[in-house]
Amino acid sequence: MNAPTDIAHLAPDIRLRDVPEALLTALRERFGAQCSTAQAVREQHGRDESAFVSVPPPAAVVFAESTKDVADAVALAAAHEVPVIPFGVGSSLEGHLLAVQGGISIDVSRMNRVLSVNADDLTVTVQPGVTRRQLNEEIKSTGLFFPIDPGADASIGGMTATRASGTNAVRYGTMRENVLALEVVTASGEVIRTGTRARKSSAGYDLTRLFVGSEGTLGVVTEITLRIYPLPEAVSAAICSFPSIEAAVRTTIEIIQLGVPIARVELIDAHSVRAVNRHSKLTLREEPMLLMEFHGSPASVQEQAETVQELATGHGGNAFEWAATPEERTRLWTARHNAYFAAVQSRPGCRVITTDTCVPISRLADAMLDSVSEAEASGIPYFLVGHVGDGNFHVGYLIDPDDAGERMRAEDLNHRLVARALAVGGTCTGEHGVGLHKMGFLLDEAGSGAVDMMRTIKRALDPKNIMNPGKIFALD
Amino acid sequence: MNAPTDIAHLAPDIRLRDVPEALLTALRERFGAQCSTAQAVREQHGRDESAFVSVPPPAAVVFAESTKDVADAVALAAAHEVPVIPFGVGSSLEGHLLAVQGGISIDVSRMNRVLSVNADDLTVTVQPGVTRRQLNEEIKSTGLFFPIDPGADASIGGMTATRASGTNAVRYGTMRENVLALEVVTASGEVIRTGTRARKSSAGYDLTRLFVGSEGTLGVVTEITLRIYPLPEAVSAAICSFPSIEAAVRTTIEIIQLGVPIARVELIDAHSVRAVNRHSKLTLREEPMLLMEFHGSPASVQEQAETVQELATGHGGNAFEWAATPEERTRLWTARHNAYFAAVQSRPGCRVITTDTCVPISRLADAMLDSVSEAEASGIPYFLVGHVGDGNFHVGYLIDPDDAGERMRAEDLNHRLVARALAVGGTCTGEHGVGLHKMGFLLDEAGSGAVDMMRTIKRALDPKNIMNPGKIFALD
Repeated sequence: MNAPTDIAHLAPDIRLRDVPEALLTALRERFGAQCSTAQAVREQHGRDESAFVSVPPPAAVVFAESTKDVADAVALAAAHEVPVIPFGVGSSLEGHLLAVQGGISIDVSRMNRVLSVNADDLTVTVQPGVTRRQLNEEIKSTGLFFPIDPGADASIGGMTATRASGTNAVRYGTMRENVLALEVVTASGEVIRTGTRARKSSAGYDLTRLFVGSEGTLGVVTEITLRIYPLPEAVSAAICSFPSIEAAVRTTIEIIQLGVPIARVELIDAHSVRAVNRHSKLTLREEPMLLMEFHGSPASVQEQAETVQELATGHGGNAFEWAATPEERTRLWTARHNAYFAAVQSRPGCRVITTDTCVPISRLADAMLDSVSEAEASGIPYFLVGHVGDGNFHVGYLIDPDDAGERMRAEDLNHRLVARALAVGGTCTGEHGVGLHKMGFLLDEAGSGAVDMMRTIKRALDPKNIMNPGKIFALD
Repeated sequence: MNAPTDIAHLAPDIRLRDVPEALLTALRERFGAQCSTAQAVREQHGRDESAFVSVPPPAAVVFAESTKDVADAVALAAAHEVPVIPFGVGSSLEGHLLAVQGGISIDVSRMNRVLSVNADDLTVTVQPGVTRRQLNEEIKSTGLFFPIDPGADASIGGMTATRASGTNAVRYGTMRENVLALEVVTASGEVIRTGTRARKSSAGYDLTRLFVGSEGTLGVVTEITLRIYPLPEAVSAAICSFPSIEAAVRTTIEIIQLGVPIARVELIDAHSVRAVNRHSKLTLREEPMLLMEFHGSPASVQEQAETVQELATGHGGNAFEWAATPEERTRLWTARHNAYFAAVQSRPGCRVITTDTCVPISRLADAMLDSVSEAEASGIPYFLVGHVGDGNFHVGYLIDPDDAGERMRAEDLNHRLVARALAVGGTCTGEHGVGLHKMGFLLDEAGSGAVDMMRTIKRALDPKNIMNPGKIFALD
């Protein structure tokens, strides 16, 4: 692993490519009011939730309303060899939306229709601008739900691009397991379909999985077919406080190793609980805490809960509190989903450097505890939340964006944390993607042979390097 | 869809490439007794369980014992631009192992070690020649198991290459969901690693999923890290006979739509039951039958079984018989796994053309019943088995290989069956792969844009077209 002083991602590598006036004219002609070059619009599309600042915004924003719009915009950009950056709701944590090589933004937020709900087949097909909450609202009456829930109310297109997951992944999998098929506009502006509505297939290369997690670097996703699930007959949720992070993690490890089909098991540390209490006006015990949910038949839910309560008690867990009503559960999970933003608000003006390692479950306690010790010793405000059932956790370092020394110290902590995860067979990113921030880590994790193979695929499918260039890996 | 008279796969497209004597000399020098050019050995490696015959065998067989052996063999073949065909146990149903462009076979069956069992993390890493039964035998003492079970005792390498599944996929997923990481020898003889032991990752392009199902056309898999699962606390299995295939299928559809976490739900038709009775000396009622298995806690298993029994009764299911002991269960599932071979033996000297469509569950009854009617009307002996919980079923047409007319009629039935599956959003292959037999169907299913993208990837990663060429799609 490179020394921290080599951290290429302290400042992004900006190499602006020319956006010829002829392209802007052509976009205005084709798209009229759907194309904007207003400064405020461009700036809004040139940033995200990452800790990066000071990258010039894209030259124009096209508000696509159809697959044809996307295809035409990409074809025009391709003709002028100009970069294209797809934009959903702007909730990336890794700099995916920054126009580091200039270019145009294609905003798909107006492509927000649920195209078909096949309740009998447990599938749904949506446009990329549909958000996860909108989707669940629209299918509520069918008795079905879509489980993938990153913290933000992200767009399904963005979640596809980053291979997102969230709190339900331990039971329902991630976008990798839940995207069945895609419609994609390729780098030349062609429209292709990958996959079918069949639950499984051995029909050729898995193009669906190639696009899931490709971070907009191979094409723009314009339709997504997803698996959805029957709402469980019974649901119960509980919180349990622990004397230490270690006790909470050891409880989780036992839950997973025993094969309890728990639907959610989330860790939040005392810093996060404090921020959540303040943000959501709650009075949770300010100790490390597991938030859990059980899905199934009434008997199965009760059985799971009893098993878990026993395991928790064995590790000093106390104050096992049940959220029995749907309203209480919603309040609990909303609080969990707000943990990130609550923590950010606890240090006004800060930016967050977020880690996202995921390790084999048996190594989770060690990987996490060393990182917590180092964060404590650094004096930098931080918080920890974890999808611990998957071995995935996030430390957020709340840095003063104007303090270069603090940023460097936080990146150093991040570096050590990732190195530990890789050393035990883990990954540098469980769900946020590589973007700008983790390009060096990807090389450490996958090795130059595998990254070279990714580059070869990128060059073959996007020979002009116009699809969200400068993300995941450097091409030269 | 092309007219049946265009069926390109009635006879494989054989275009033998030159295998220079210099390569054979170099292989003998490097591999000594591990390299064979004996006629019998070559012939054994030039065929599989598909209905294809009369393709000349590979020019040599290398029995690889290590990743280095594979890498060296591929590098030598690459230097001479000679095709390489990986070989596991030879159980492909789709012509994957046929040397349609000549070349050499790399037999990985001696690479049959379980390299590591990480019981605490529910992962295992194996060499590609390990078979599924061997793996389960070797990890039995850990209380864990690997659920993917195609009919044959296939190699894990072959199962990876074809994205295999089997009877447990409805609960545990397929190879797509259960391969975590790979070691691969690329077309140039380099060794790369894809993925980690983390349960989820967003670290760059999903090379793991690209290789899973690539049928040996992008590289040779030399190590596979798999998810394994705790043996369920309780298991119960049952069979239930139905008055019609439709009644059995309608029961299955309701089981899935209700979200019952059934572990296995397999349909076998009366022809298959008859063959199984004869082959395994059983006395099952010769009617359409569901074979089911329930995994979970004792209470959960009982609850699932009660729900299913009620649904089955609603469709005229009768003779619900329980297999309570492990021995009874093993006998039942062995009979199911032998259904294919039992049916083949019911017509001495026959070859089998096997269909493998998978459709959205709500369309399963229609897709299946029309195919059964047509098969009945054709007079060709056939059998039907189905992983019906996934919407996947196989009709096996038992043809006389010397009767060109019968082969043509069976291919015509196959064609109609696939057309129906594609029309309702299904796939031409749920688990067997494309191989030689389904290249035309893949084009119908995925469209020329998606298949062209597959070709572009193939050309980029295997510029000399030496990795199992002529499979999945034609390159020219």
